[in-house]
Amino acid sequence: MARGRTETVLVTRVDEGVARRTPDELVVEEPLEIRLDDHLVATTMRTPGHDFELAAGVCFTDGLLAGAPVETVRYCSTGSATDTAYNVVTVETGGRAPEPAPRVATTTSSCGLCGSTTLADLATRLEPLPASRPIPLDVLAAVPDAVAEAQGVFAATGGAHAAAAFAPDGAVELVREDIGRHNAVDKVVGRLLLDGRLPATGLGLFVSGRASFEIVQKAWAAGFAAVVAVSAPAALAVATARAAGIFLAGFARGGRLNVYAPERIPSRP
Amino acid sequence: MARGRTETVLVTRVDEGVARRTPDELVVEEPLEIRLDDHLVATTMRTPGHDFELAAGVCFTDGLLAGAPVETVRYCSTGSATDTAYNVVTVETGGRAPEPAPRVATTTSSCGLCGSTTLADLATRLEPLPASRPIPLDVLAAVPDAVAEAQGVFAATGGAHAAAAFAPDGAVELVREDIGRHNAVDKVVGRLLLDGRLPATGLGLFVSGRASFEIVQKAWAAGFAAVVAVSAPAALAVATARAAGIFLAGFARGGRLNVYAPERIPSRP
Repeated sequence: MARGRTETVLVTRVDEGVARRTPDELVVEEPLEIRLDDHLVATTMRTPGHDFELAAGVCFTDGLLAGAPVETVRYCSTGSATDTAYNVVTVETGGRAPEPAPRVATTTSSCGLCGSTTLADLATRLEPLPASRPIPLDVLAAVPDAVAEAQGVFAATGGAHAAAAFAPDGAVELVREDIGRHNAVDKVVGRLLLDGRLPATGLGLFVSGRASFEIVQKAWAAGFAAVVAVSAPAALAVATARAAGIFLAGFARGGRLNVYAPERIPSRP
Repeated sequence: MARGRTETVLVTRVDEGVARRTPDELVVEEPLEIRLDDHLVATTMRTPGHDFELAAGVCFTDGLLAGAPVETVRYCSTGSATDTAYNVVTVETGGRAPEPAPRVATTTSSCGLCGSTTLADLATRLEPLPASRPIPLDVLAAVPDAVAEAQGVFAATGGAHAAAAFAPDGAVELVREDIGRHNAVDKVVGRLLLDGRLPATGLGLFVSGRASFEIVQKAWAAGFAAVVAVSAPAALAVATARAAGIFLAGFARGGRLNVYAPERIPSRP
């Protein structure tokens, strides 16, 4: 079912004191309830579309699958095809995923905290990544422009983030958009998971906004070799990337970028 | 205690293929655990600073206080002055706040969902706001530049959001910064709460990023008359502002803005 990712409203545009009525396209934001087998594990505000990927990605990056394979992903089916039925997605492992621990309520800083509250906690769950061949800096610097061409919802609304997986030669393999950066990343990870392509060894992850701790945590869980962010990283994100062995670049714009991890770039041939 | 909101790391800046090592200032992101009386109600990644305001604001905008007055706000004190003790804040109402309902785990789209998953749910908790005198459009359009002057963490790092409360004449009364937009708003609301200034009738709320459903929800809970966002609103945010009677402007940059709510601007004298 094609569910709208954008919606048109009439707005009043004011420029130099002159007001005129005009249609404007907005990004859609709706709650999605994610269930793992019989357990409600998350509720997120998301842009509809690629919901199965989002649900699978959330379960994976939060460590809820613990290695269990995903058997099916489906919308809530109660017989009645209400809109609401498409706001509940169940990820089924046939009970092979462990029962989720009860969690405390979380609020967020543009992020889902999801139980791993610190780098120390995270390092007990995830191993440092194996070294992979460095992606050339000029390839990394070209990724933002390549992804921009596929950011249809952003182009229409100015209000959507994008995440993308790219190959070591810079080829963009997969782009997902969402009102939330974290959802966009989970959709990318979920797609790779459902395609049997995790860990994403050697691949890079692009994010259109900032690189917070949570973004790097998700990249680590999925095994990405590199993270390229258009905007600033947080200090904890840098520490996390260095601990994980993830290459982290920020402020990747106009052919420039800053490399935050590793701390020192090895000289390249 | 002055806890750092920014941190300096050495990075490699790459421009036109030329790399040089240089110090770069990053925004700090640390977990904060928020307790209401004896209950853990939230854990959020936040930029340290104004933690009491953040904790009080979260409890207020989530509707957890339910009208109970805040008696004290304090850091976790166990006798040992560890750093971790400053990542736990307790809001005390002497047990007058209702016991928080157990909540499901939430993930987020740059937001905390916090139990009110839809506009319909929200409208059962909050009344439409009383009409207040409209703030002139040219005053609203000037707010972003006025707030920018106070965005010290953003100026240093490029990685922090800001929220601000402003008077009907455009005077900026209060600016708070955080890695999370929602936290910045909660810090502003918390300050007003602790100062006995809620509801914020007649005041405007500025946010440096997009206006999601959650931002408008917080503005509604606090009673702001207007929300001005630098970036795009989500469709649900527009619907929420129209239901609440909140004036909502987006893309407020360079003297221009789009008015999303009310649907039609009344003609002004």
